[in-house]
Amino acid sequence: MLDPWAAGGVEDYDRLVREFGIEPVTAELVKRIPRAGKYFRRGIIFGHRGFDVVLDAILEGREFAVLSGIKPSGSFHLGSLTTAEQIVYYQREYGAVAFYCIADIEAFCDNRISFEDSFEIAVDNLADVLALGLDPRRAYVYRQSEEKRVMDLAFEAGAYVTTATMKAIYGEQTVFGLYMSALVQVGDILLPEHEDFGGPKPVIVPVGADQDPHIRLTRDLARRLQPRHGFVLPSATFHRLIRGLDGSEKMSKRNPMSYFELGEDLDSIRLKIMNALTGGRPTVKEQREFGGEPRKCRVYELAFFRFNDDRDVEDIYQKCVGGELICGDCKAAVFEKIASWLKKHNEKKKKMMETARKLLEK
Amino acid sequence: MLDPWAAGGVEDYDRLVREFGIEPVTAELVKRIPRAGKYFRRGIIFGHRGFDVVLDAILEGREFAVLSGIKPSGSFHLGSLTTAEQIVYYQREYGAVAFYCIADIEAFCDNRISFEDSFEIAVDNLADVLALGLDPRRAYVYRQSEEKRVMDLAFEAGAYVTTATMKAIYGEQTVFGLYMSALVQVGDILLPEHEDFGGPKPVIVPVGADQDPHIRLTRDLARRLQPRHGFVLPSATFHRLIRGLDGSEKMSKRNPMSYFELGEDLDSIRLKIMNALTGGRPTVKEQREFGGEPRKCRVYELAFFRFNDDRDVEDIYQKCVGGELICGDCKAAVFEKIASWLKKHNEKKKKMMETARKLLEK
Repeated sequence: MLDPWAAGGVEDYDRLVREFGIEPVTAELVKRIPRAGKYFRRGIIFGHRGFDVVLDAILEGREFAVLSGIKPSGSFHLGSLTTAEQIVYYQREYGAVAFYCIADIEAFCDNRISFEDSFEIAVDNLADVLALGLDPRRAYVYRQSEEKRVMDLAFEAGAYVTTATMKAIYGEQTVFGLYMSALVQVGDILLPEHEDFGGPKPVIVPVGADQDPHIRLTRDLARRLQPRHGFVLPSATFHRLIRGLDGSEKMSKRNPMSYFELGEDLDSIRLKIMNALTGGRPTVKEQREFGGEPRKCRVYELAFFRFNDDRDVEDIYQKCVGGELICGDCKAAVFEKIASWLKKHNEKKKKMMETARKLLEK
Repeated sequence: MLDPWAAGGVEDYDRLVREFGIEPVTAELVKRIPRAGKYFRRGIIFGHRGFDVVLDAILEGREFAVLSGIKPSGSFHLGSLTTAEQIVYYQREYGAVAFYCIADIEAFCDNRISFEDSFEIAVDNLADVLALGLDPRRAYVYRQSEEKRVMDLAFEAGAYVTTATMKAIYGEQTVFGLYMSALVQVGDILLPEHEDFGGPKPVIVPVGADQDPHIRLTRDLARRLQPRHGFVLPSATFHRLIRGLDGSEKMSKRNPMSYFELGEDLDSIRLKIMNALTGGRPTVKEQREFGGEPRKCRVYELAFFRFNDDRDVEDIYQKCVGGELICGDCKAAVFEKIASWLKKHNEKKKKMMETARKLLEK
């Protein structure tokens, strides 16, 4: 029997689990999580480091924090949602204090975006996160460039890391500042455990699979700094990344048909979905006879990542493999549902712009 | 004729001028400086980068700043005085605003001294500088770890420097933080030109000959940051380092007979001076006949660096080369003068401890 939740592209993620010591997220683990979110239920979160520490805090009703952030270099897009929704989830479901970092030092070192310019982008990004449901009353939102404690932690971490380790993790970087901004990220992840925020506590950092090097470095340095600060090693979950609509393995700005921004014109989004790679058969006749292949299909992937109700996802899956659903109809239906969500989201976002600005100006 | 001001050990400094593009401090240049200090008059300051920019400001009565600092890792000693006295000189003679940096990030990265511990050392060091005459009303004294603007400048500089440049200047460092603390020093030197302190202006940084790599890096980065900040390239003067009393080329903590701390027991200082390397002849008879060799003599070097009145230095020199002065008598006389200065200094310092603490606590 085919498993509707075993979506495509997981082979590489299995390798991460086997070769890099990321622990797998098993069905047993997911069962233990009260009100597990869609990313857990659907296996999009495939691995973790130290999640049990956070799960214990959840089960015992103890304080913990969730941390994430964004490099303010462009508008929110389809791929940005996975992390942002997870922060909201931990805050809403379990009362976690949310830390949301605007990585403007990284945007400066990486993309030479000035702090003035990245501020405006950050306001826009944060309005998206607020529209997704982040409660600013239980969140600490900050810009790296304004958060001296993060810089302090970065310098402290720098005294405990060897140049060889930095090179092993990040390779040979031409711009020296890129190594420094990696240590600033370490500072970000340790910030929720700073004494000003109540000291050591479990912290969950939901990240894409490609962020494991940062997590390993941070856990290593948290261990070295334990004698001074008593840090609890930060935990992370790793989610797979939504693949490119056009059939590419990764969404990329260089390839505009692979993704869409949340504020993009709906006609443009419709075009991208209508041109997306599917798992359809060469003819309608064959499709009726053999059914489609949802694991290949990027329209199914879109529903899989974005639809909130498991039954809606399962419905598409069953009708697709059963030959009932033809790609054209499926695309139109998925687009309608996405467009309806986007309209509501963008209305909410508009109302959140001023709040976002105030939160970042303080 | 022998020149009393051409003290020993200058050959290496000549090489710095010839090979590294440090500009020589010529007699003509010194003549142009109003009320040139003893370090200029005696050729202890042998080279500079961009000092003409500062001299113009002095001659035209324009604003400029002087910056220096100390790594708070131990007590003030004989070698620490050269830089500290120069800050006081620029402030007192020409009204320069003085910036004095407590390099506690460097002490942490270099010597793992915690900020709490380095604070107490810094209070003690700063009291010495105040006793030397620093006027706190026209000085900005700060700890690196508390000065966010310095960290901002360090990160900004990091985005403009290549990893290859850092390695070329500082070699292969095991502890990554040492590279970072080098960029913090760049931030220190650029701080007087920050808009919060009135923006771009000439800045003079009096340093030992071994600090040229920092200066070159800072001038290079100031140039790269000019389009954003309009920095005037910081200027530096280079002074030769006072050599070890025991005959070693460099004073060193690993070698306690080579130097003394300002707070050291006078008997211990007497012992070190009495055992110092001199330029004396094997016998008193020969000394009377041929005269001593002050360029070799570390007791003469002590007088040369420390005595304020040129005539006192010249007096020793002439009597030594003329065979009038025997080493034992000379040592006793130099010790008495040094001891008398130290007693006064330490009394003043004691009174300055509370001021120093307050300046650093703010």
